[in-house]
Amino acid sequence: MDLLQQLITHSSVRSFTAEKLSPTLRQNLLKAAQSGSSSNFVQAYSIIEVSDPQKLEAIERLANGIGYIKEAGAFYIFVADLNKHAQILQYHQHSLEALENEEAFTVAVVDATIAAQTMSVYAESLGLGICYIGGIRNDLFQIAELLKLPKYTFPLFGLSVGYPDHENEVKPRLPIADIHHMDSYHPITIEQITEYDKVMKSYYAKRSSNPSETDWSTNMLTHFYEPRRSHTKAFLKEQGFVF
Amino acid sequence: MDLLQQLITHSSVRSFTAEKLSPTLRQNLLKAAQSGSSSNFVQAYSIIEVSDPQKLEAIERLANGIGYIKEAGAFYIFVADLNKHAQILQYHQHSLEALENEEAFTVAVVDATIAAQTMSVYAESLGLGICYIGGIRNDLFQIAELLKLPKYTFPLFGLSVGYPDHENEVKPRLPIADIHHMDSYHPITIEQITEYDKVMKSYYAKRSSNPSETDWSTNMLTHFYEPRRSHTKAFLKEQGFVF
Repeated sequence: MDLLQQLITHSSVRSFTAEKLSPTLRQNLLKAAQSGSSSNFVQAYSIIEVSDPQKLEAIERLANGIGYIKEAGAFYIFVADLNKHAQILQYHQHSLEALENEEAFTVAVVDATIAAQTMSVYAESLGLGICYIGGIRNDLFQIAELLKLPKYTFPLFGLSVGYPDHENEVKPRLPIADIHHMDSYHPITIEQITEYDKVMKSYYAKRSSNPSETDWSTNMLTHFYEPRRSHTKAFLKEQGFVF
Repeated sequence: MDLLQQLITHSSVRSFTAEKLSPTLRQNLLKAAQSGSSSNFVQAYSIIEVSDPQKLEAIERLANGIGYIKEAGAFYIFVADLNKHAQILQYHQHSLEALENEEAFTVAVVDATIAAQTMSVYAESLGLGICYIGGIRNDLFQIAELLKLPKYTFPLFGLSVGYPDHENEVKPRLPIADIHHMDSYHPITIEQITEYDKVMKSYYAKRSSNPSETDWSTNMLTHFYEPRRSHTKAFLKEQGFVF
């Protein structure tokens, strides 16, 4: 199968069979994650595999992911990680100032995401299903305590990987014209949003699980109605990412 | 070929043949980019394809990427993009406050990176080469002016895609034990860094292009010797991402 056919049928999986991933498979997932690009080869990420049932339960509760975290074939937390670099700078008795800004944080977030998405595409090529768990950011302080995260690390998201028990329909993406620009950015128009809303209204009404009367812009308005996870700034300060 | 074999032979390509990518191929790259996961389906990214020779030249200069930006088969800029969501909120005369914090920015950076890495893995599955261009962040204000970026957007990186004229050796990654943790984070030790430095010292000494006497920790010390791109904070403020 052409890889494109696999990619465009991606949907997140939130229901897995009881089968756990074999050690060889988990090793290969890590190899895949490591294979991607890294800005100036800083490799500014870590992957925490969580298998302790009590920790998994705590993560399920705080991430609001009951049923597809502890129940996944394997569960990972991707960490934007400049702690390794802090160790090197400290060893050379050098200032850590270069780690404490938006640029360094952004590099680590990009590196961790490249690793996660490479693992995800590889997992799906084997027939596995995946689900990103942004909900771990609901309580960054609790996650950091649970996983003993040191300074200069940030838990970015979880990733559930496993054998799919149920697969959802593919969600229609924004039309390519709405996300693709030639040479200059052209802001989306209300007409474009209205057209896409029609597509999504139909998708949400007809989908097999949890059909509902909504559309994309209504969901976005609800999602961004008020600031989310407002403890993030304080957590970033605590971790040394002083913005 | 197993996808893992493709992934673990990835290296960035900085030398392309003169062949440009066909319209069909470019369309498929965009489809691949759109296929990945998106946090709460916010789809908070845009892809600007740059083909204007003058703009490409300006980007090459400011990104320090002479030879592999204008010369690529196609060149894209990935934008962390909450402008679409700002349009929706404004249309409903609602506050934009929910877009103006680290959490919203992080979501957009993750979405843009997932899109870019999915495009990259697909491109490589077709025998194309890719190179991420973080150097566009060397002058965020100039890039924003060049591409007419509105508020609530952030140009994250460029991506050169094309037919490889020359491929580099694969760089040895950190040992899996250095990036993989079970249940809790365990900081890397100086011994682990020293072991990896030996591997990288040998790689840098022997590589066919630009061999040099260095190792990983020396490179990291140099890279993080002082803060990089210190205009980032001011740019984020200007764009509305008030941290």
